[in-house]
Amino acid sequence: MQTSWDHRFAHRTSGMKSSFIRELLKVTAQPDVISFGGGFPAGELFPLERTKAACEKVIKDNGQKALQYSTTEGYTPLREWILEFSAKQGLKASLENILLTSGSQQALDLIGRIFINRGDRVLTESPTYLGALQAWNAYGVNYVTIDTDNDGLNTDQLESIISTNIKFQYVLPNFQNPMGVTMSLERRKKLVELANKHSVPLIEDDPYGALRFEGESLPTVAVIDAEVNKRSDQVFNGNVIHTSTFSKILAPGLRLGWVIAPPEVIKKMVQAKQGADLQSSTFDQYLAYELVKGDWIDEHIALIRKVYRERRDVMLEAFEEFMPEGTTWTTPQGGLFLWLRLPEGCDTIELFPIAVEEKVAYVPGQPFYPNDGPKNTMRLNFSASNPDLIREGVRRLGNMAKRSLATIKHRPSMRTDE
Amino acid sequence: MQTSWDHRFAHRTSGMKSSFIRELLKVTAQPDVISFGGGFPAGELFPLERTKAACEKVIKDNGQKALQYSTTEGYTPLREWILEFSAKQGLKASLENILLTSGSQQALDLIGRIFINRGDRVLTESPTYLGALQAWNAYGVNYVTIDTDNDGLNTDQLESIISTNIKFQYVLPNFQNPMGVTMSLERRKKLVELANKHSVPLIEDDPYGALRFEGESLPTVAVIDAEVNKRSDQVFNGNVIHTSTFSKILAPGLRLGWVIAPPEVIKKMVQAKQGADLQSSTFDQYLAYELVKGDWIDEHIALIRKVYRERRDVMLEAFEEFMPEGTTWTTPQGGLFLWLRLPEGCDTIELFPIAVEEKVAYVPGQPFYPNDGPKNTMRLNFSASNPDLIREGVRRLGNMAKRSLATIKHRPSMRTDE
Repeated sequence: MQTSWDHRFAHRTSGMKSSFIRELLKVTAQPDVISFGGGFPAGELFPLERTKAACEKVIKDNGQKALQYSTTEGYTPLREWILEFSAKQGLKASLENILLTSGSQQALDLIGRIFINRGDRVLTESPTYLGALQAWNAYGVNYVTIDTDNDGLNTDQLESIISTNIKFQYVLPNFQNPMGVTMSLERRKKLVELANKHSVPLIEDDPYGALRFEGESLPTVAVIDAEVNKRSDQVFNGNVIHTSTFSKILAPGLRLGWVIAPPEVIKKMVQAKQGADLQSSTFDQYLAYELVKGDWIDEHIALIRKVYRERRDVMLEAFEEFMPEGTTWTTPQGGLFLWLRLPEGCDTIELFPIAVEEKVAYVPGQPFYPNDGPKNTMRLNFSASNPDLIREGVRRLGNMAKRSLATIKHRPSMRTDE
Repeated sequence: MQTSWDHRFAHRTSGMKSSFIRELLKVTAQPDVISFGGGFPAGELFPLERTKAACEKVIKDNGQKALQYSTTEGYTPLREWILEFSAKQGLKASLENILLTSGSQQALDLIGRIFINRGDRVLTESPTYLGALQAWNAYGVNYVTIDTDNDGLNTDQLESIISTNIKFQYVLPNFQNPMGVTMSLERRKKLVELANKHSVPLIEDDPYGALRFEGESLPTVAVIDAEVNKRSDQVFNGNVIHTSTFSKILAPGLRLGWVIAPPEVIKKMVQAKQGADLQSSTFDQYLAYELVKGDWIDEHIALIRKVYRERRDVMLEAFEEFMPEGTTWTTPQGGLFLWLRLPEGCDTIELFPIAVEEKVAYVPGQPFYPNDGPKNTMRLNFSASNPDLIREGVRRLGNMAKRSLATIKHRPSMRTDE
């Protein structure tokens, strides 16, 4: 007897949709498409020789252990390395504060799992990281949003909203995905102050923090909060849950991220992770430790910064040259993405198939808005393409936008805002 | 302001407990403890030289790709290899039937996520695999159970129960965890027949199927179901969701498992996996493919079978020599575990700290019963210790059990069943 499955799926699956971005990546995986769509780091910077040597060393020194089951919390030397790395950025914490996760996507999922009851209100930026929305949709969340502008989350809107029964607030202060903007120090301080005043936990997602090209490094929300909730010991125990990842400073294929949070939260996340996947890859954890230890990682991050900055600059210059008048964009001080807004009337979802025909891809901006947003935005990645391709890709996008605008002008007006 | 977290955690976390086994493993991680507690494969059989060569080859041929993001579904050549491996066991399926997961634990979690609404009734064996209970507790499940005996799940009890609004049924037909027993062919057929008759999906967990030491190989429940729900194409599309893993035939540290299921179910699981961790380690998938391709894996599995069979035999002989009269045990035809029942009156949870003092560890049987079960059982792993240690460990356990029985005889009776 054939069974049909639709009626069997749990209610929560109605909130699950295949990620627009991941489906889009399949469309644009043809090698002749210039893709600004994904969030890929520059593959040509991956340390292949060093990885080969690290594999050899792991197998020689710890082969059996590296292939065996290990603890849910993660490989201790790697967790200690992360603590040192974080301490350099001012975030002081202990082993009981840290959990190794299968990419920072898993950190977001575990946060949803331990906190969100169906119907809970979660406060996010608008726009915000799509992967967080995708993780939390499965838990039946309602999003309440605050606009993000060139200085990050607009804290002027915050006090009236944060007091309205919010379960937690999610922020990306550094080189935000998707906009590439950085939250100002003043706003960070205001955010921490209000979150503490109203007892709303802050989830700080910081995958790109180490990739600053220019400007002054700002303390993370976790660091500011630790100042406010000061303790005499080295245990991090305030109002912030901080996540980051090896994906952008080393390699996303290893699927290694981490959470730094109060011990009570870590304990609960460890229990949730046991049910989810027992532990992250032992081998990849040994390998990552072998790769990052010592001074090499600092040089490697410096190299990534240099290359990404060049690519950002090429993209910004190409915008000046090829984009139609009335187009605006952000100028990120770090990270992998920027945000472009075409003139009014352009619809980046409608334009997407045309772009693919022209062999260039981007991510339309609208899906990044938890509730609703403008139609004329797009997220562009500048880390994964070399300067020549960036210039050529922007040229194609610019031509497409110009043609689209020409059509709009000749089309009988159907817009209600005119 | 310090926040306390307890009141913030979601309702579902009340069902999460730290796995007894994983906590226990920490206690028994001292190198001088003989541990029959974990589910560790024999580390000394891991193919270290081959892994080293495979790493080199992956980095040389596909370095950038192996460290980069990839698809949620998994690395296609590895999925094709799994399809061939499954076809050898009679299970014919296509690429649209298979999802690569972060260990088979993640497969169980994703199954819970896409199927279980709070309060749903799930039918399991009693006792059953603890990791499945841990995954599904987070989704607010109610367990309905059927006893498992030396021939596996007792299908005589099945018809009256499977008709009582069951969401799905979970079975481990081969060398069941925890008991080590194998479900008879007759019962497998009866199970498939009743599940189809009452439209209850079967989840077949088969991590050990390839590790049969003796006796005739039996078709999996998936294979029997495919006969019943026959199709003309190669697409697997019946009533069964089949999971397995590289953990027991290759290495658990790589965290690679898989699900073979109807395309509709795979699609939904892919969406759920995107929210959970985007994808499993790209590097480990390339590495595993390089390791398993060709004929080597057959020889390797033959070696594992030979070694585990020896160890099982040593353990069974030591039981005869050291265990008190009235002790019974299962004789597994494959896998990693067996099940021991001490004479009435012994309590293996009470005895556990005494065992640890004696430097020997096991897992008490009671937690494997979803609802409730006897106190005098334990699960013993025979794959992870060499023959000398197995003999010595069983000697210690035997002495402990004998001393416990002597105490019980001299203790004023407090048992209500006398």
